[in-house]
Amino acid sequence: MPRADPSDISRRNPKWQARRDAIIDTSARLFARQGYHATGINELCDANELGKGALYHYIGSKEGLLAAIHDRVMDEVLRGGERVAEAGGTPSERLTMLGAELLDIIHRYPDHVWVFLHEFPALTGERAERFRQRRRQYERQVEGLLREGVESGEFREVDPWLTARAWLGMHNYTYLWLKPGGRLSARAVAQPFAEIFMRGIAQGAE
Amino acid sequence: MPRADPSDISRRNPKWQARRDAIIDTSARLFARQGYHATGINELCDANELGKGALYHYIGSKEGLLAAIHDRVMDEVLRGGERVAEAGGTPSERLTMLGAELLDIIHRYPDHVWVFLHEFPALTGERAERFRQRRRQYERQVEGLLREGVESGEFREVDPWLTARAWLGMHNYTYLWLKPGGRLSARAVAQPFAEIFMRGIAQGAE
Repeated sequence: MPRADPSDISRRNPKWQARRDAIIDTSARLFARQGYHATGINELCDANELGKGALYHYIGSKEGLLAAIHDRVMDEVLRGGERVAEAGGTPSERLTMLGAELLDIIHRYPDHVWVFLHEFPALTGERAERFRQRRRQYERQVEGLLREGVESGEFREVDPWLTARAWLGMHNYTYLWLKPGGRLSARAVAQPFAEIFMRGIAQGAE
Repeated sequence: MPRADPSDISRRNPKWQARRDAIIDTSARLFARQGYHATGINELCDANELGKGALYHYIGSKEGLLAAIHDRVMDEVLRGGERVAEAGGTPSERLTMLGAELLDIIHRYPDHVWVFLHEFPALTGERAERFRQRRRQYERQVEGLLREGVESGEFREVDPWLTARAWLGMHNYTYLWLKPGGRLSARAVAQPFAEIFMRGIAQGAE
């Protein structure tokens, strides 16, 4: 087991986990405001009211913390994907649900998503690879739904890869203005976005 | 005139301008790779093979450099917007043209756009305000085209503000994968994106 990993005993302790999550959230806010590279370990200790040893006990390293912020978003994103797969329905129904799940996460985790979308190139080695694979898994789900809809004739003959990028861009980019306490709820955005997208790729009379 | 502004004589010298543009481009690459806050003046001097005094002569300050990178993108974006306004056509024709112009800029300036989309919160005071106003001007053009199309009955009753965000997200987010020398040209993306979007908001038989 690599040195940075907390012990299994700690992982099974809910109080320890809750404290770790709080550290991740506080640090995400700090990284979102001033950037990952510009934030030092001392600032992280101050913000979390912890010494270096204690911070290390919870997180391992600054890059471990960045990876944990990514995981906190990706865990939710992939869980949302699983719920959609289990719920079933037509490709357009499932893609609509997936969009609502994604916007809900972006709305609830503005700092984490900001860090996630801006700082992912700072992950290295296995951490970068793990992030890449999980992100790819999600992208494949979107592409798969589009391919399925094209094959069933529900969607017109769009390129699944490129169309997935259009869908991801439209949804992910809301992180700039979709904020907790803002004018619009995630739901109020998800529905008109789904309407634009589903009409945009629907098989139409031509 | 604020101290950071180069003199009018320098501005009128094409050789000086070309050197300044080269400094902006080199620095954009550096900021894109390692972040604005994490990049020091000494690194900028090394990358541009200039002393601090010479760098100051061309750029004024690190934040002046960041503003210049933003301007290089915004100048092109707004020029594209002017071309579209002059060309005329239906709202969907103009929005299609605007999308092609935007993707062309994203494709040609990957480093600048990366810096632009990630580091804009680092601009302060008048520079932040100038950037905000120019970005707002562009967003208003997109919203205006959508409103015009709704009023003329070409588009269905969409919310111009929210629909502009969908359009901007879909196009802006291509900066993650639309690169010079990549598999896809800006034109190969612009056309299917416009098709998705225009069908998505078209007035349809219901």
